[in-house]
Amino acid sequence: MSVTAAKGFTAAGIAAGIKQNGNPDLALVVNTGPRRAAAGVFTSNRVKAAPVLWSQQVLADGELTAVVLNSGGANACTGPKGFQDTHATAEKVAEALEIGAGEVAVASTGLIGVLLPMDKLLPGVDKAVAELSEHGGEKAAIAIKTTDTVHKTAVVTQDGWTVGGMAKGAGMLAPGLATMLVVLTTDADVDAKGLDEALRQATRLTFDRVDSDGCMSTNDTVLLLASGASGVTPAQDAFAEAVRQVCDDLGRQLIGDAEGASKDIRIEVINAASEDDAVEVGRSIARNNLLKCAIHGEDPNWGRVLSAIGTTSAAFEPDRLNVAINGVWVCRNGSVGEDRELVDMRYREVAITADLAAGAESAVIWTNDLTADYVHENSAYSS
Amino acid sequence: MSVTAAKGFTAAGIAAGIKQNGNPDLALVVNTGPRRAAAGVFTSNRVKAAPVLWSQQVLADGELTAVVLNSGGANACTGPKGFQDTHATAEKVAEALEIGAGEVAVASTGLIGVLLPMDKLLPGVDKAVAELSEHGGEKAAIAIKTTDTVHKTAVVTQDGWTVGGMAKGAGMLAPGLATMLVVLTTDADVDAKGLDEALRQATRLTFDRVDSDGCMSTNDTVLLLASGASGVTPAQDAFAEAVRQVCDDLGRQLIGDAEGASKDIRIEVINAASEDDAVEVGRSIARNNLLKCAIHGEDPNWGRVLSAIGTTSAAFEPDRLNVAINGVWVCRNGSVGEDRELVDMRYREVAITADLAAGAESAVIWTNDLTADYVHENSAYSS
Repeated sequence: MSVTAAKGFTAAGIAAGIKQNGNPDLALVVNTGPRRAAAGVFTSNRVKAAPVLWSQQVLADGELTAVVLNSGGANACTGPKGFQDTHATAEKVAEALEIGAGEVAVASTGLIGVLLPMDKLLPGVDKAVAELSEHGGEKAAIAIKTTDTVHKTAVVTQDGWTVGGMAKGAGMLAPGLATMLVVLTTDADVDAKGLDEALRQATRLTFDRVDSDGCMSTNDTVLLLASGASGVTPAQDAFAEAVRQVCDDLGRQLIGDAEGASKDIRIEVINAASEDDAVEVGRSIARNNLLKCAIHGEDPNWGRVLSAIGTTSAAFEPDRLNVAINGVWVCRNGSVGEDRELVDMRYREVAITADLAAGAESAVIWTNDLTADYVHENSAYSS
Repeated sequence: MSVTAAKGFTAAGIAAGIKQNGNPDLALVVNTGPRRAAAGVFTSNRVKAAPVLWSQQVLADGELTAVVLNSGGANACTGPKGFQDTHATAEKVAEALEIGAGEVAVASTGLIGVLLPMDKLLPGVDKAVAELSEHGGEKAAIAIKTTDTVHKTAVVTQDGWTVGGMAKGAGMLAPGLATMLVVLTTDADVDAKGLDEALRQATRLTFDRVDSDGCMSTNDTVLLLASGASGVTPAQDAFAEAVRQVCDDLGRQLIGDAEGASKDIRIEVINAASEDDAVEVGRSIARNNLLKCAIHGEDPNWGRVLSAIGTTSAAFEPDRLNVAINGVWVCRNGSVGEDRELVDMRYREVAITADLAAGAESAVIWTNDLTADYVHENSAYSS
């Protein structure tokens, strides 16, 4: 499963000692070929961690042989020394695999503003290389966890080819809650351009529409590596759809494991004048702290939905807005609709539908509720 | 004090029975002249409550004689009936005071999407009119409270003239946490144009820079009424400064009473290329849930400050950013600065300074921390 579900990949996950609690904290994914095509999507935060800057550089030629990932430290806001450490990590992997450092992407996650313990990380690379295996995907997925309660993997298999992947974090690409790291692999024979198109299309519709707490990480990284080991070159549409499915699956797992969350909230914006309008409105609803508290309290407080819609620049008339919560149209024409007492909010999944009555476009954004557990977890994170 | 500190005003605050707990819920402020000049600033939310739509209309001529305010119901998203109720409230006040309804502004605060109990509100108007007094300012300030733990008033007196006011809520004009209602009065002889200029300038620098939870209300209203009873026409600059001082005082009281807050956070952005950049960066920091949780936990997590700055379009270079928390420059040149252990965060007020190293402009934004109490209060509000 995970990154080793597709043929032509080995992986490992080990404890290098970067995390003080001794949990696994270093993962390695290696493309054994025959192809080395790759694509990546990174955080849009202008404050980018050293590994993001590095990986963007090495991906410029559309090729990657290996990805090394660590939890236990983000290596963000660490200055020139932080970048040197990322470079040294890539060099160490390259040396052990007898490849060039320019074939090695690096991803890091953890606290910002702290240098990585290189005296532990570099020996860890040797240990990870020694444990590389075609069955190492699960261990790699475990090693990239930070506050994740479970590791996340997904696989889609088609006629003779496979797309698989692993993810950590609980958020979205831009913005993202905690750092989101994703590595996807495929044995389909797709070139860098095809990978890039499929990956951008998939992230736009999946990770970019998962918004846990509106905060954007300095480290978000999504990589897609193709080994070509299946010998099959699928139609671009079919390939893109498989990548989207894996991303969608992982995105749902991220939101389901969001820090402190007790509700998964599916916000569907319908009848928007444009898809951009639908996404803008969905995100505004997803980021409304008052609404997220209300959902936590199982309170179908549709006024807070309208209040969030009203802050956007989307096309709509206030007196034509309709809102349903779990199928009950509690707001009709911008005013009181069906009885809010009819809304059953006992279950973990909550569905909010916002009808803008302004067109035919739609979008779905996923978020979660705001809870005291979120506050507790994030007020004690670095101390 | 409050709205009756200036000469030429009477006020009252009574319990009309709109709130089920029997607390005061109806306030009336009357300008007894000789002048009736007025100005107003309202929420920029496109979903506006009926009283906002009404008050914007009646203010078009720059004159107001009375303001009636109720807590216990926002009369927002209540359709044509809600607007009729606001109109009927103004008519009732007008009838009792023997003036026109077009001289009466209306403001409401409370739950969105619920019609007001007019059978209680209208008799309440008679009761309030009967209790109008030159000493009624305090009672009026008490009657507009919702989740406020204290009522908020402020007064500035100059050479022969006074500006006073009352406020409820905990947030900002655009956006605002809970509804923010403010009524300011002055006995200075200033025309509507002078009032409007002073009020817009003041709100831009005060209420617009208080951001408790990034949520924008449907009801936010700030009114300024001038009676001219002092017979003094101050210089516009002096008058504007007095209005700014009163707004600043009330704004600080709002943030100090924000729902569930345990820390007041003063964010100063310095060396920005423009004031707009400084405000954008300040707001982005103020709305970062992860940072607000960290401050709650007394954790000087400057990485979250950089992460918030990185989401803006302001001019800056990531490796030139500096951040101080309570005077300790924990981030220098986008990287680790002074020892974070030196930061003392035991006190309620926390000062964050973000140095963009990109110019000479600055701005101060106030916010508060994100706490479990905020979640509790807002998950149980309407139930």
